[in-house]
Amino acid sequence: MKVLEERIRQEGLILSDKVLKVDSFLNHQVDTELALAIGQEFKRIFGHLPITKILTVEASGIQFAMAAGIALGVPFIYAKKRKAVTLSEAVYSAPVHSFTRQEDYQISISQKYLGPADKVLVVDDFLATGAALVGLADIIEEAGAELLGVGCVIEKSFQEGRGLLEQRGINVHSLARIASMVPGEIHFIDNDSTVESQSMKESAGC
Amino acid sequence: MKVLEERIRQEGLILSDKVLKVDSFLNHQVDTELALAIGQEFKRIFGHLPITKILTVEASGIQFAMAAGIALGVPFIYAKKRKAVTLSEAVYSAPVHSFTRQEDYQISISQKYLGPADKVLVVDDFLATGAALVGLADIIEEAGAELLGVGCVIEKSFQEGRGLLEQRGINVHSLARIASMVPGEIHFIDNDSTVESQSMKESAGC
Repeated sequence: MKVLEERIRQEGLILSDKVLKVDSFLNHQVDTELALAIGQEFKRIFGHLPITKILTVEASGIQFAMAAGIALGVPFIYAKKRKAVTLSEAVYSAPVHSFTRQEDYQISISQKYLGPADKVLVVDDFLATGAALVGLADIIEEAGAELLGVGCVIEKSFQEGRGLLEQRGINVHSLARIASMVPGEIHFIDNDSTVESQSMKESAGC
Repeated sequence: MKVLEERIRQEGLILSDKVLKVDSFLNHQVDTELALAIGQEFKRIFGHLPITKILTVEASGIQFAMAAGIALGVPFIYAKKRKAVTLSEAVYSAPVHSFTRQEDYQISISQKYLGPADKVLVVDDFLATGAALVGLADIIEEAGAELLGVGCVIEKSFQEGRGLLEQRGINVHSLARIASMVPGEIHFIDNDSTVESQSMKESAGC
């Protein structure tokens, strides 16, 4: 998604070869127009599938789940990061390790809102280690629902997340795929340069 | 907002005279159509003001801040509930006590995204004790920005939140104002019954 890549180039802060901050327009301050466009892009990619619900994890996935829900005309659910006082009924839950915060937490979804009739699109802001997304995939499996795809806004393709999801046969699409980055320089896959794209394919043995 | 009140009557779970669960359509599973309509209602109420930014607190305020941002054509910011590894720069912050979770936490906003040029609408899902909203008002003051109004989806009018905000001269509007509730019964102010509305006015000394 060209407009997204351009915005990342302009406003993204690369703090190290693994940490990219996009909190001026995606996940602290949010450009609502861009978020809506991201929802439309998810519709372009996944709109042919019979999706009944969008699933994400609080908090930074919510704006993109909402945008996808608007575009696809379906409700969304955000998994809570721990059991709250008012989330007292039966839940599906999965443990997740956060590498950003260096801590473990539980994500959970009320059993009332996910079941065998649901065909789910999972949406999140980042695909990096894939920890939260694997947790959501586990929850969807536990609920007997069907996972039709995972859509992420930004993918750090040099981390293991995509591989973990694809090993499970999951259909993964990210709107901006970062091949590599260092402060001051960022390379996207496919939409950046043929060289980058080639080197990724070669390293993947294609 | 009639459609919202009806939905609360149909789907809201009143667990006690203080706890209302609306997680089937507002703050766990989210009806995106209703969320958009809520954004439009905020526009109807606050749209004449020169708002430059919407402010909320993660996580359950995000969908309504986004809806208001869409309706008003402005970005939104969600305060983070504690300092994350990637939120390392200077922040405005305020302490908040959560009565739902019975714990204290900090809310913070990067100083980069809020300043004297900003005219802010604060949006949240619930107005009850007002703790988080008072924290946001403090942050806005600290940033030198102007707070033009507070818009809440549901107000528990029998709790002190509205009073605390109005004491500070803040312009508060809620889309569904609950006068009282017990399991199986809920009364809204003004849009419910004249009796309810009257008794509220009398108790307020009007």
